[in-house]
Amino acid sequence: MVKNYIIGIDLGATNIKIGLIRKRRIVLRAVVPTATFGIKENLIAGLSNAASGLFLEADITKNNVAGIGIGVPGPVDFSRGVVHFFPNIKGWCNVALKSIMQKKTHLPVVIDNDANLMSLAETRIGAAIGLKNVIGITLGTGVGGGIIINGELYRGSSFCAGEAGHIPLNEAGPKCNCGGRACIERYVGNRYILRNVRKTFGKGINLEALSRLAHQGNAKAIGIWNGVACHLGVGLSGIINFLNPDAVVIGGGVSNAGKFIFDKAREVIKERSMPTQAKTVKILKAKLGNDAGMIGAALLVEETLVKNEK
Amino acid sequence: MVKNYIIGIDLGATNIKIGLIRKRRIVLRAVVPTATFGIKENLIAGLSNAASGLFLEADITKNNVAGIGIGVPGPVDFSRGVVHFFPNIKGWCNVALKSIMQKKTHLPVVIDNDANLMSLAETRIGAAIGLKNVIGITLGTGVGGGIIINGELYRGSSFCAGEAGHIPLNEAGPKCNCGGRACIERYVGNRYILRNVRKTFGKGINLEALSRLAHQGNAKAIGIWNGVACHLGVGLSGIINFLNPDAVVIGGGVSNAGKFIFDKAREVIKERSMPTQAKTVKILKAKLGNDAGMIGAALLVEETLVKNEK
Repeated sequence: MVKNYIIGIDLGATNIKIGLIRKRRIVLRAVVPTATFGIKENLIAGLSNAASGLFLEADITKNNVAGIGIGVPGPVDFSRGVVHFFPNIKGWCNVALKSIMQKKTHLPVVIDNDANLMSLAETRIGAAIGLKNVIGITLGTGVGGGIIINGELYRGSSFCAGEAGHIPLNEAGPKCNCGGRACIERYVGNRYILRNVRKTFGKGINLEALSRLAHQGNAKAIGIWNGVACHLGVGLSGIINFLNPDAVVIGGGVSNAGKFIFDKAREVIKERSMPTQAKTVKILKAKLGNDAGMIGAALLVEETLVKNEK
Repeated sequence: MVKNYIIGIDLGATNIKIGLIRKRRIVLRAVVPTATFGIKENLIAGLSNAASGLFLEADITKNNVAGIGIGVPGPVDFSRGVVHFFPNIKGWCNVALKSIMQKKTHLPVVIDNDANLMSLAETRIGAAIGLKNVIGITLGTGVGGGIIINGELYRGSSFCAGEAGHIPLNEAGPKCNCGGRACIERYVGNRYILRNVRKTFGKGINLEALSRLAHQGNAKAIGIWNGVACHLGVGLSGIINFLNPDAVVIGGGVSNAGKFIFDKAREVIKERSMPTQAKTVKILKAKLGNDAGMIGAALLVEETLVKNEK
């Protein structure tokens, strides 16, 4: 039986996206709001049912599927497939998601952090295609990161590497959710941008509207994006000096502010990074958008499960 | 002919150390003040002559030598063996040191950055022996670093990786020699510690004396070392969150302040780093001291030249 298909799941705090993937392309997909499921057990059952639904719709069986890849919004023990916890979904603490899903689906399962999978996807078939050393950054409620070294995901000694959002930007500064202080996330995470928006405009405006205002020339909106880009640029200049990568790929909602983020961040990086590192690195906008998680999860299956079989 | 020996050279801004190495041990050595040689051409001739002198003393010929490894205090194109420049030795700009030395000695030559070689040496036979993911930090006039990933030196996309001293500690701050601002080196490099010493004591005291004063309980001296350790701890916490290493090995003169550096830095790292990363990482004092450069250079020969021959 030819196992042509892979299931790629992007388990997000807001939506769960499930894709049936063939030759690195999503041929069928389902999206379900995460809150629909309530407790963890229902959510896990929901993942399995949604996968079965896609098999039925595509008129295939699990015998046509090489495996299931799952990207999750939090730290994971990659080797054992255990979720440590999710900063933004309650009720998950040391969940053996891999073995539970394997029992439910009778398919091999691999699990990794979502920012790792975004970085993998962007390096294999996205903005950084073919590059060897790549840092992926996801800008959202949290600021995540993934590290590709010599073309392979680098996960660190306890599978927690890549936390670019938790490099301190200043020695002193506001407390961060991670337990530290003055971390990059504390300056460019969505909630802090939105807090700044309310202070500046005297009311709440969402980030899409803030981007539109900036594109229309609104000075206050441009000022906020410039501030975000400056913080990000200084943070990235340290990463760039230290890791000397080919590229930094920036994705996530905030990256849609486009030139207001990228032009200014590039300017700061050029100013603050060491000459050789600054000359080498490309600052790229992620290409795969909301599909990066699903595609990355499928690539993980391809590169771990399928490769190991050979 | 059995090539049992390797020449390991540590080309420093103050001293040049040349070791004849057998089975990873220095069996003979020579030390010459760098200033002795004056211009670059004399220095290169001096390296070659010193190597010949060791052959004579050990009663061997170049046929017994597998190659020459050279650690240098600045950025290097590792693959071509070209020195870009030395921040603290004048007159070196794009010098093809590897090919010049090969012509002079008729031996294979490899060249790398000194902090890379310290990190390699400490991981192979020093403080971090057997660990997979290790960051080496050298504290001196400059603050250098090296990165070991999965047991191998990671050099980055243009051989400049590891510049731990040039991660910004703050968004705003004093200009750094590297062109950036508020880099770690700008707070814990020797000259800035000494500047702080003059301000605090009203006179110049060298760092050895400052360590002695601290060990004798002098509050001002302890305060200065505590400050250094706090800066270093915050900087390292970012590196640790991002790379999730097994260990950080700290070497160089300042590391001799011992507990005044290590205890406080560990405390700050525990406070500022993410729990899993903080639990995983060991903060270690380098073991090989002044020999790390020579030994690392010899290991480089062993792992690149000798390995490639097989």
